This record gives sequence, structure tokens and C-alpha cells, in this order.
Amino acid sequence: MQQARDSQGRDGGRLRVLVVGAGFGGLTLTRRLRAAPVQVTLLDQNNYHLFTPLLYQVATALLDPSEIAHPVRGILRGQGNARFRMGRLLAVHAAEHRVETSIGDIAYDRLVLAAGSVNNTFGNPSIEEHAFPLKELGDALALRNHVLAAFERAATTADPQQRRRFETIAVVGAGPTGVECSGAFSELSRLVLRRDYAGEPLDRIDTELLEAAPSLLGSFAPSLQRAAKRTLERKGVQVRLSTPVKELKGSGTLVLGDGATVEAATVVWTAGVKASPAGELLGVALDRGGRVPVDEWMRVVGVSDVYAIGDMAAVRGVGGPHPMLAPPAIQQGEHVARQLTAEATGQPGPGPFRYRDKGTMATIGRNSGIAQIGRLRFSGFIGWAMWLVVHLVQIIGFRNRLIVLINWAWDYVLFDRPVRLIAEAKRRNGDNQIP
Amino acid sequence: MQQARDSQGRDGGRLRVLVVGAGFGGLTLTRRLRAAPVQVTLLDQNNYHLFTPLLYQVATALLDPSEIAHPVRGILRGQGNARFRMGRLLAVHAAEHRVETSIGDIAYDRLVLAAGSVNNTFGNPSIEEHAFPLKELGDALALRNHVLAAFERAATTADPQQRRRFETIAVVGAGPTGVECSGAFSELSRLVLRRDYAGEPLDRIDTELLEAAPSLLGSFAPSLQRAAKRTLERKGVQVRLSTPVKELKGSGTLVLGDGATVEAATVVWTAGVKASPAGELLGVALDRGGRVPVDEWMRVVGVSDVYAIGDMAAVRGVGGPHPMLAPPAIQQGEHVARQLTAEATGQPGPGPFRYRDKGTMATIGRNSGIAQIGRLRFSGFIGWAMWLVVHLVQIIGFRNRLIVLINWAWDYVLFDRPVRLIAEAKRRNGDNQIP
Repeated sequence: MQQARDSQGRDGGRLRVLVVGAGFGGLTLTRRLRAAPVQVTLLDQNNYHLFTPLLYQVATALLDPSEIAHPVRGILRGQGNARFRMGRLLAVHAAEHRVETSIGDIAYDRLVLAAGSVNNTFGNPSIEEHAFPLKELGDALALRNHVLAAFERAATTADPQQRRRFETIAVVGAGPTGVECSGAFSELSRLVLRRDYAGEPLDRIDTELLEAAPSLLGSFAPSLQRAAKRTLERKGVQVRLSTPVKELKGSGTLVLGDGATVEAATVVWTAGVKASPAGELLGVALDRGGRVPVDEWMRVVGVSDVYAIGDMAAVRGVGGPHPMLAPPAIQQGEHVARQLTAEATGQPGPGPFRYRDKGTMATIGRNSGIAQIGRLRFSGFIGWAMWLVVHLVQIIGFRNRLIVLINWAWDYVLFDRPVRLIAEAKRRNGDNQIP
Repeated sequence: MQQARDSQGRDGGRLRVLVVGAGFGGLTLTRRLRAAPVQVTLLDQNNYHLFTPLLYQVATALLDPSEIAHPVRGILRGQGNARFRMGRLLAVHAAEHRVETSIGDIAYDRLVLAAGSVNNTFGNPSIEEHAFPLKELGDALALRNHVLAAFERAATTADPQQRRRFETIAVVGAGPTGVECSGAFSELSRLVLRRDYAGEPLDRIDTELLEAAPSLLGSFAPSLQRAAKRTLERKGVQVRLSTPVKELKGSGTLVLGDGATVEAATVVWTAGVKASPAGELLGVALDRGGRVPVDEWMRVVGVSDVYAIGDMAAVRGVGGPHPMLAPPAIQQGEHVARQLTAEATGQPGPGPFRYRDKGTMATIGRNSGIAQIGRLRFSGFIGWAMWLVVHLVQIIGFRNRLIVLINWAWDYVLFDRPVRLIAEAKRRNGDNQIP
């Protein structure tokens, strides 16, 4: 069937590949196709690739947006067979090999969906409305502005109970994001803001980490889970396991499963993700978490010439489905690139996809991290140092690496977070808006 | 009269000084009072000091916000006699020595208004609604997001006339901000975006600088005006003098004084500023441009114990009123600090304020600037190098200087502007907002 498409679908003799999503999977795929005789269009609703593992550092006022976000056009400079389009995917007409987007129709020979995942509040409207997610760059900026404004309010609030509310940050969900985020907020509060608010009537700043399950960091070994919990508590984070959250009232009242309440002006929701709704456009039955079922070549089951990779794909086969993390997305992008290159050059394609787990890691603020690589377990300073090096290497662009390193070193030595600005783009009422 | 206040107004024996505005004037005043036996409250609606001379570099995607904005609490760390309050001034009750703010009342013994200036569209509602001002950090972020989105739209617009509109930036007003801004946009377009959009159907990117007066840079010597105009034109900016703007239609149609039109999706308004409306709260007759009339000790004429400095003050006396620039604001802040220190320590105060003009400068992008220092005139590369050094030295904080320098060097060598992200904080519908 693919051979039949080859004869009709090519553009100037070249296979037209449309990649939706400039995250880890889509961007890896696009770059790996740079020497292949194909024409790649990369579509994303943002004009940048986001290094999501460090998103919480933007939210906690350590890094600037441009240090973890890199313009896609800058990354693709010099790749003559690729072009970027900023727009949203609206519909997939697989039979016609065509998609509808917010900037018009795009025809393709091969479509690769790599649209990632979105925040999941499990249908809880009060969480949806009042809690802060932490999935996108705009989320991190909104959270940073909010939490800094809350401390300013605390400094001028006479009523002790009201003030406690402004001083409390509740992070719901103790996966890697929740652990890293609560650890970083605790340090922002204890090490940086305490100095900024010297002489003000702040009682203490309270970071709570709430988790429904009986342990934190479900994907890590029990010894590392315990190490992470101890470290968080030493840093002043209140870790409350087996503590499901039922509702968040608008005034900042978090209602727990047992009816008890937590008063927190800032509630961060990191308790769940689900596949991007882009998968729904395919008209196939989706797997758990809304993921698109694909075979071991990431081909969507039942839809010709459409692939799905990364968080939004659930591989049916050996070892699958894979965790919703960057490494499977990157490896799947590489695999699909090999397939398309083989197809375009008439070579035999690769065997089925096999995920190589290179390990996972998380950081819990200054001097403390955990890492699990095969059977090896690292915690404390060594885990933290490994985390630093791995993340610094992965950030795109030498300049970004340099500036992130300066900011980290600055914060480490001086306890002075550079980016604690309450700043956002002004909204405008006029109709002179793009798009 | 001041002595009478001293006996009744002190707080723990110390004079309570309220400074409104953390710009160049207000911040200089606050820091200069650090050794004085006074209690300073610094009020600003933002939590940062903004280095406004480089605001256009945020708008043109060269610098990140945190490189030109510095948290006030970070600046005042270690100054035990100063506290910061984030809030807006709502009313002044001078007879009661009390102000109303968005975070409650504040009593004072001496009030110093240093609220700066705001954009001035001279009562033109169509400009007010559709043009982009460039006075605040949020303005710069909104302009950056808009202009980058306009280029993305241009890349996917088939109709040539429509595309030209998206490719056109019109800067209205050829003062230093307009000249620097149009020069920087022209370079962003020609040197950076051209590479990002290689292979796209962009015709050319068009930067127009429109000025109602017959010359640009009114405050500079004619020889420097001519040098600036030549440089702008060499960089591809269309400089149109004696070209007043009448109206801006929402679709991006700029109507000129003679009825001709310019189609531009991005219109930047840098043609006027006026004093902050905070001056209106004093109930005195204001000078031209809404400035508060003050004597040669920056005391508001007719209102006891209230001073005004910087852009919002018009000094009546030798050499006044002074230009609405950073240097007069800084020098006036220093002068009022000397007065208040003298008063608090019972020493004789300084003589009348005299402005020392240390020169003015402007940059017109890579390798070209103009500077006028006393009778000396510099243009070209020397003017640019002087501009670089002076601005780098003035930026607050060593870390910021270092990172700004890296970004400048990066852009200079590689033509790769680091910050060209279309990013803003997500607005939220919930009511869990601060404040």
C-alpha cells in the first residue's frame, strides 16, 4: 500500500512528510530527516521547542523563558528540506491525505502526530478552573506571576489567617514534576524570598506536597522514594501521602478526600497528564489516557500512512506502551525517521521499535537529586550533579547552556533568583491582533 | 513649617519618607537615603525596576525581560531603613499626610512623587486602541509577540497585498526610542528573520519611520541628525519626515496627514509621552504635558511636604523644566536625598537644584550610534561603542550585565536573536487571582 502512495503522493519526486508537534519526538524526527530525500513540514501552535524538564524552573523564578524555549525556525536553519508552520491542527482527512489547520489545508504523503500530552484534571471542574497546571510555557509564567504576587499580598495583610493563605503553596501530585516543583518553591521561599522580605510580618512560607497514592515518585525504586521524601521534608516541604484532593474552592480552599481542608492561595496541579486531543481527530478507538494505538513501527492501527509517536502514542507490542517521557518520544522519532528514509531511498526499513531505557532522574533542589540507571541507584549530591550535567547537555544551543549555567551558579552561590518578576504581555482590546 | 512637622510626624523618632515610583528617580532617592536616619517606603505598581533605555531590545527579541528588569526587593536587600510595597497610588490627602493606595492607606512625613511618564497619543482614540506603545515591560512583550506572529502569518499568506501588510512595521515618532526601535526592527528583519524564513515567500520586510517634524531626533545637533538618518536609510529603514499621522484604522491602515495611507500590521507609537496621571491627585494646576510644577528644591508649589522628581516634575527655575530623561530624574533624586538627610540630621540643606547635562546618546543598531557630550559630537562606530559601554555599566547587577553582554555578543557574531519567542502568561478565568 505504501508503494502505491509513493507513485501518486510525491512532491517534485519527494515524499511529503507532515509532522505535527515540535516537542522532543517531532523535532528529533524532523532533524533526523535532514539528509533524506523528503520534504518535511513541521507544524506547531507555538513558534518554539520547549525543554519541558526545566519548565518548573521558570515557574520558580530561576530561569527566563528563552533559556528553555528555542525558536523552531532557528533550530531548522540550514535544513533545506524542512519548513516550519505555526498553526493548530483542526481535522485529519486520512483518506485524502490532507489535514485542516488554523492556517489552511496541508497535503501530505506521510503524517506523523507528535502532539504530546496535556494537563489532566480527571474531569474535576473546580481544579480545572482554579488550579495552576504546569505543562506549557504560559502556565509557568502565570504561576510565577501569581506566586510572587501572593507573597506581596502576604507582606501587607494584617489578618494572620488571611496571611497564612497567601503564604501557602500546595502542589498536588508527587510525580517528578510535583517533587521538583515543590522542592524548588520551598527553596525559593526559604532561601530567596526570606531575604527579600526581611522585616516583613511573614510568619513562614509553607509548601505542601499532596499525593493520593501511598508513595511519591511511583516510577522510582522504593529506596529512592524514601530518599526523596526525607530530602523534601528536610527542605521544609510537608509531604502528605495517601491524601487525595476532592475539590478546590475559588477562594483557595482545597478540600481533601477525608473532608479536611488546606487554605492555599496557590494550588499547582501536577497530578495527571493525558494524550493530546489531536488523537481524537483520527476517528479510531483510543487507548487508556486517550493515547493513539500504534503498532511496533508507530503506524496508527487502521489508518494508512499516519504515524503517532511520543506521549500521544501507545505502542502495542513488546515493552509497550512506553512511559510518557522524553526518551521514548525521541527514540520513536529516530525510528520513524529511519523508516521514512528507508522508504524514500528504496532501502529495507528497520525492525520493530524497542525502547532502550537509559534511566530516569529527578532533582529536589540544591545538592540533592535521585537517579536510577538500570540497576544503579544514586541519591543526594551525586544524583543532583548527574541531573545537572544531563539536563545542561540536553538544552538546545550553546548560548542557552551558558546562560542557564550562569543562572544556576548565581542562584547557588548568592541565593538570588534573577527572574522573580511579575510581568506579562499586555493584553490589547484592539482588533489589530495576529492571528 | 517643616520643623513643625518634624515634631509630630516621626516614626520612632525617624522621618517617614514615602517614595512613589521605583524608576530612576525614586530608586536613586531610596538608595541614597540608606545611611540617613529616616524610614523609607517605596511604592510601585510593579515589583521591579525597569531599565527603560533598553526596553526596545526586549521588543525586538534581543533581550529577556529579566535582563532589563530587576526586582526592587533584591535591590533593597540589606537596606534596613527601606521597605517595598507593591500597589497603585489612588489619592493624596496632603493636609493629613496620608495617601490611599490599592493596598491600603500609608501615612508619611514627606511624600516624593516619582511616578514617571506614560504614553501620550494626544487624545487620538484610534492610536490609543490599535497602536503599540513602548513604555512598559508588558508593552515590549506584547509588541514582540505581535511582530513575530505577523511574520508567521506573512509566511503563509498567498495574497501579495495582504502579505505586504504583515511584513510592514511602521514606527511613528523619530525621537531616540523611535530611531532605536526602527533600527533594531530593521536589523531583526534583515539579518535574523531573513535566515529563519529562507525559502518562504516573504517579499521583503519593510520598516518605516514616520515623523511629523521636518527632522528626526529633535534634541540632537543637526550634524548628528543627518548622520542618524543616513545610517537608518542604509539599514533599510524608510525615514519619512514632515509626515504626521492622522488615524490608525483597526485593520492596520495608517492614514497620514495628506490622506495617503500606509498598510502595516504592526504600528508602534513612540511619538509622545506625558507625565504620569499621579500628578493630578495633588489638586494643583499642572504645567505643559501634565507635569507637576516644583521649585528648585523639587517641592510641589502650594502643597506642604510633597516633592516631585523626574519626568512628572517641571522645575521652575534656572535651566528648568528639564528634559524627560533618566539623568535629570537621577540627579533630582540625589538632590532630594541630600535635602531629607540634612533635615533628618539637623544639618543645613543643599542649594537650589542645577542640572548637569552629561550628554545624550542613541544607537541605530549594529556598529552605529550617535553621542553628544557638551560640545563633542560622535557618530558611527565610536558613538555605538560609547553607547554600549555606558548602558552596560548602568544596568543594575553584575549578573544582568554579564548576560546582556553575552546576548549582545551572540547577536553580533551570529545574527541569531535568542529571544524570538511568541510567549505570554496564560490568562485564567478563575477567581483565584492575586490581587
